Amino acid sequence: MKSKVRMGMIGGAAGSFIAGIHRMAARLDNRVELVAGCFSRDHHKSLELGKALGLPAQRCYASYQQMLQAEAALPVDERIEFVSIVTPNHLHFPIAKAALEAGLHVLSDKPATISLEQALQLQLLVQQSRLHYGLTHTYAAYPLVRQARLMIEQGILGAIRRVSVSYPQGWLASAADSHASVQASWRTDPSQSGESGCFADIGSHAFHLLEYITGLQVEEIAADLLCQVPGRALDDDGAALLRLTQGARATLTASQTCAGLGNNLQISVYGELASLYWQQEHPNQLWLQRRGEPQQLLTAGTDCRYLDPAVQQSCRTPAGHPEGYIEAFANLYRDFAALIRQETSSVPVCGIEAAVRGMAFIRAAVSSSQQNASWVSVASLLAAKSA
Amino acid sequence: MKSKVRMGMIGGAAGSFIAGIHRMAARLDNRVELVAGCFSRDHHKSLELGKALGLPAQRCYASYQQMLQAEAALPVDERIEFVSIVTPNHLHFPIAKAALEAGLHVLSDKPATISLEQALQLQLLVQQSRLHYGLTHTYAAYPLVRQARLMIEQGILGAIRRVSVSYPQGWLASAADSHASVQASWRTDPSQSGESGCFADIGSHAFHLLEYITGLQVEEIAADLLCQVPGRALDDDGAALLRLTQGARATLTASQTCAGLGNNLQISVYGELASLYWQQEHPNQLWLQRRGEPQQLLTAGTDCRYLDPAVQQSCRTPAGHPEGYIEAFANLYRDFAALIRQETSSVPVCGIEAAVRGMAFIRAAVSSSQQNASWVSVASLLAAKSA
Amino acid sequence: MKSKVRMGMIGGAAGSFIAGIHRMAARLDNRVELVAGCFSRDHHKSLELGKALGLPAQRCYASYQQMLQAEAALPVDERIEFVSIVTPNHLHFPIAKAALEAGLHVLSDKPATISLEQALQLQLLVQQSRLHYGLTHTYAAYPLVRQARLMIEQGILGAIRRVSVSYPQGWLASAADSHASVQASWRTDPSQSGESGCFADIGSHAFHLLEYITGLQVEEIAADLLCQVPGRALDDDGAALLRLTQGARATLTASQTCAGLGNNLQISVYGELASLYWQQEHPNQLWLQRRGEPQQLLTAGTDCRYLDPAVQQSCRTPAGHPEGYIEAFANLYRDFAALIRQETSSVPVCGIEAAVRGMAFIRAAVSSSQQNASWVSVASLLAAKSA
Amino acid sequence: MKSKVRMGMIGGAAGSFIAGIHRMAARLDNRVELVAGCFSRDHHKSLELGKALGLPAQRCYASYQQMLQAEAALPVDERIEFVSIVTPNHLHFPIAKAALEAGLHVLSDKPATISLEQALQLQLLVQQSRLHYGLTHTYAAYPLVRQARLMIEQGILGAIRRVSVSYPQGWLASAADSHASVQASWRTDPSQSGESGCFADIGSHAFHLLEYITGLQVEEIAADLLCQVPGRALDDDGAALLRLTQGARATLTASQTCAGLGNNLQISVYGELASLYWQQEHPNQLWLQRRGEPQQLLTAGTDCRYLDPAVQQSCRTPAGHPEGYIEAFANLYRDFAALIRQETSSVPVCGIEAAVRGMAFIRAAVSSSQQNASWVSVASLLAAKSA
Repeated sequence: MKSKVRMGMIGGAAGSFIAGIHRMAARLDNRVELVAGCFSRDHHKSLELGKALGLPAQRCYASYQQMLQAEAALPVDERIEFVSIVTPNHLHFPIAKAALEAGLHVLSDKPATISLEQALQLQLLVQQSRLHYGLTHTYAAYPLVRQARLMIEQGILGAIRRVSVSYPQGWLASAADSHASVQASWRTDPSQSGESGCFADIGSHAFHLLEYITGLQVEEIAADLLCQVPGRALDDDGAALLRLTQGARATLTASQTCAGLGNNLQISVYGELASLYWQQEHPNQLWLQRRGEPQQLLTAGTDCRYLDPAVQQSCRTPAGHPEGYIEAFANLYRDFAALIRQETSSVPVCGIEAAVRGMAFIRAAVSSSQQNASWVSVASLLAAKSA
Repeated sequence: MKSKVRMGMIGGAAGSFIAGIHRMAARLDNRVELVAGCFSRDHHKSLELGKALGLPAQRCYASYQQMLQAEAALPVDERIEFVSIVTPNHLHFPIAKAALEAGLHVLSDKPATISLEQALQLQLLVQQSRLHYGLTHTYAAYPLVRQARLMIEQGILGAIRRVSVSYPQGWLASAADSHASVQASWRTDPSQSGESGCFADIGSHAFHLLEYITGLQVEEIAADLLCQVPGRALDDDGAALLRLTQGARATLTASQTCAGLGNNLQISVYGELASLYWQQEHPNQLWLQRRGEPQQLLTAGTDCRYLDPAVQQSCRTPAGHPEGYIEAFANLYRDFAALIRQETSSVPVCGIEAAVRGMAFIRAAVSSSQQNASWVSVASLLAAKSA
Repeated sequence: MKSKVRMGMIGGAAGSFIAGIHRMAARLDNRVELVAGCFSRDHHKSLELGKALGLPAQRCYASYQQMLQAEAALPVDERIEFVSIVTPNHLHFPIAKAALEAGLHVLSDKPATISLEQALQLQLLVQQSRLHYGLTHTYAAYPLVRQARLMIEQGILGAIRRVSVSYPQGWLASAADSHASVQASWRTDPSQSGESGCFADIGSHAFHLLEYITGLQVEEIAADLLCQVPGRALDDDGAALLRLTQGARATLTASQTCAGLGNNLQISVYGELASLYWQQEHPNQLWLQRRGEPQQLLTAGTDCRYLDPAVQQSCRTPAGHPEGYIEAFANLYRDFAALIRQETSSVPVCGIEAAVRGMAFIRAAVSSSQQNASWVSVASLLAAKSA
Repeated sequence: MKSKVRMGMIGGAAGSFIAGIHRMAARLDNRVELVAGCFSRDHHKSLELGKALGLPAQRCYASYQQMLQAEAALPVDERIEFVSIVTPNHLHFPIAKAALEAGLHVLSDKPATISLEQALQLQLLVQQSRLHYGLTHTYAAYPLVRQARLMIEQGILGAIRRVSVSYPQGWLASAADSHASVQASWRTDPSQSGESGCFADIGSHAFHLLEYITGLQVEEIAADLLCQVPGRALDDDGAALLRLTQGARATLTASQTCAGLGNNLQISVYGELASLYWQQEHPNQLWLQRRGEPQQLLTAGTDCRYLDPAVQQSCRTPAGHPEGYIEAFANLYRDFAALIRQETSSVPVCGIEAAVRGMAFIRAAVSSSQQNASWVSVASLLAAKSA
């Protein structure tokens, strides 16, 4: 076992669902140690949570700026090596920027920024810094998602023809839900979330999963976004037709107003030789349907030798001992720690390129929707913005 | 039990998959009797099959025209009461027309015609004739599909927000498949199938299922159809965004080139209070997810008192004794026989209106696709054609 | 297609669930024709049902004795070729005996008789007659059950170690259920059902499925039967440990008092190389788990070339068009017709040997249970009775 | 958040699967801190692992005796508060005894001891000590297992009639497997495992799950244990009939020689009003079948208000974010920490009583099997041993 990588967390005081997940994920494999934090703009709250997490008071900071400065003053083998950003969306960019400028690696909750412009700026910063930037696209960290990617890379599906990815949730199904929780509140507020609600929040997960698994890129988007619940400022539901590289096609649906649905992200990839199916709510099952053969059901597990070795190493238990969402999240922390420690791994961490593509997707979807679902080219958008 | 309704069948000689299903379906409940047929343009083949089916030679006809004429000359209580049309698509219209003109009810395989114009002509004929016209949309005849429709009608889902319907098959996944069977051959030939391949063949099923279950109508379509397998004259794959009445949205996908897939028609209906899910390959399971409650799994069966009485009567066995595709098909024959015998039923038989809407859907989808997935209004199309 | 085999039915007037299934099953494939019947001891009821089924009045008989006599007087190519017995259990034996003595083949609902002694007598009669005797063990007629049997025969599982077969139903869960229907009534009455209730009725299905699929025989039984609902004369629930040939072991559970359960017959066969799982309520799915490989899910369908050709021929539709209970039952009629017409088939019809073993199983289970679940040898029982 | 509870671990050096799980489980919720350990009898190995886990060298001990002594000498607020025992089975008892005698709470991997006599001795020690003793029966720590227990307690199933619990694994399916791993090796060795192999190892889990969920006790056992793989000293497979309090019956199957099976523990509880089904490999699904109603599928999640509040608190994520085996294990650590800190909880930790019953079960099963599956009374056994 290697020494632990020292982390400082920004954001995540009381009320944050995802920050608790980040901390459990960081803790699980003992590769990362939380040593500092600025958990809230309210220093008292920050101190309180920090104390509960076992931090000394002097490393519970009043602002992230103060934290970056104070940590830089510590000896090299004491100070934090990376920051984990778990604030509302609109703060991801300024914090990531400041952290990179302070010479720290960054692991950020998604979306990376609240605009494509910011994402492109961030990309420049990352490239200039030679630091590591990771985005916590949890779903791509499930072992069988990684297996799916590798199987497609190996050509088991032949040419990919069609992808269907959908992400229906129901937690914002009624008007009352918009203010029922801290997350609901800022996720329906443009100043904190950016120009899109549902598509930025979960459509971006669906988009990333699609590109991650297939290895293809979305070229054009025709999207129809809307507010199913009247009075919202941002989309809470939508769907899109996609045209991918190599002539493949896809549909992408994301919604937060499907009453009764939990977190039902699912993807079907249809190829000329075989097809794949994976569903987040049953993450240890990957269905492979080769033409003319019985369906195959692959399972995750350290002992499943039919899986790629890197995928087996993404597991902690043998087949039949289910792992879940927290373990997938923990893979992100484990992989990011390995990256910082320069350990080799065949598993790519989702980085700044994916972050930029995710923001381009949101921009393209919103733009297409504003033009009555006309096709918008992602590449042109990127070219125009980068110019 | 009532006397059997006398049927003449047109089409369905060797090589036809669906004709055998029609005959089993007609036979199952003993409400319909096959008494005449013109099974092939080759009189010898027609005679051969007719004999095997127990028909006297003189009622195995050389042409459908001859059959209609000869049957009309028989005593009223002997001659056929309706024709069942199981030919390739392009013959559905002329045969239905001739049968109606001969005073016979018509039960036709789908699609009703190969163009919207024909469908509108047929609608006029049906309306003038006061005869019954039925279209065999099998999937709408599954008990739990009927239950889903009734539950939505009763408001269990509240306002419908989004529908996802997809129909992936794989039997035309490779170029070689285009000529591998009689059906494959005519289904990829415009002169026999009309202007669309996959969308006419199975997209129309998905469309009908959507309108049948939800009670909503598709208003606008933005469709992206294509040939995944080079060299085909008609679409073998495609997807569409749909806008429905009452502000609901949908995606519809249909493909015959998804390697490994069988007949995986499935539909999710997402509402403001609850959501439904049904999958044809597991037809005896209907999932209902009410917000904040455990999911419910409804099952088909004569003894399931939580089902609508009409739905229970669409079953033949108690829960736990699975019924399938043939029984669903048999429901169509049973319902059509009941209609002819003027028995009351709460179950609507899919008739000429649905037939017209199905053809309008195909037209709109093809037209939208030709315009790079621009929105096409189904209503405008119908208005223009009807004018 | 071949000429239809002529059938006379005994039993099955109003109130019988299974008789309607028999008739649908006989009709489905057009290989069998119902030409005579004695549906009730009440001649009026018999006539009424016969008429509804399209029989001439003179072939709707007042008693089965009369039917057998009258049919024998008809010309050879008109009279019935076999009788289908669908009465309550206690009449199966006398009717089968009389039919065999009249030179007719017999297809009987199960159990074959209400005692092992009767079953052994019947076996002698069948052997002497050179006529065909079939028992409608529906569950062994599902295509994938046949596939399971063949796969085990081919050694795919290696030595079988353990079998778990269970058959929980809930329709007799409360005391009130004992008299809620005709079937419930006679199935809880020893004079009509024999010495066992639940184990005779459905335990025997589980037993047959186990021996049919594995090709092994049960050697010893330790059974614990009981009445869960006080006041019943016959067992309504029970379980047994089994020792099979070749050292394999099994558990068998059957119950009619499991509230909420439908007809959930299921079997797991565990081998040294691989294991199988099949569940009646999802009959088109057969799970194969080879050691160290992804699970395989086999599907039924005429086009599933990985299935044995005989299994494919047990299907009527391609994969993805579900068949069910009625189709499985129809396989029994189709196979029995083929047997009578001396067509070759690789599929064995369940005959008198299985009937005798089924009765020996019931006897052994009851006997073991009376001795506080001591082991009872099936072979010794058979030897003693045969002596 | 409360201060962390200080733990010392005994056992668990390289090669142990379960020790790693214990450590992740202890870490996940930040309620427990590993501060000392004796991970191996080889001090070097112990030091190595301890260092990797971040322990100072002086708290990595050469023997458990030394550890107990040395820790006792530390200040009260520094020394360990409980020991976690993760050695092979035969050491559980002496270590637990020594720890209790040293005034420490004990959390032990199961089985508690290798004989019933030891278990009864341990029970006395625990009772005298007024210390907490916990046994890590993971499967009872899954949220939906707890929910099942509560639902049964509330009478939703009415009287329980029958339970079917089975636990098929395949990891010892071939002779070669006996020596393929450290665990395989000692689990097939009587001197390390006690008088039973499979039944002690996993049969005991099935037994505990049954008593935990139903609230009933097993009164009598008729068990048939065997070695499916020749040459083993201990059972690797077996099944039993059980008679429970209140007249309920059960079957219990456990096997490690079912090729292809992972860790497929499952339980059905059949009642007079409703039935339940749960399967460890899909732990976030609990099926409830009330008579005459649609099946219900309960899901785990912090936001599932239809679950008991204590069950919701056993979850870390909202519905749709799957938790698994490690989280269930973590519940044990969290609950044990709460017990030590005297926090109230409605969730009972599995303690010494369950440990004794588990050993009585093993004894009864082995004893019954030695008497050709005669009934053995668990209560008599306990009475005799306690006397």
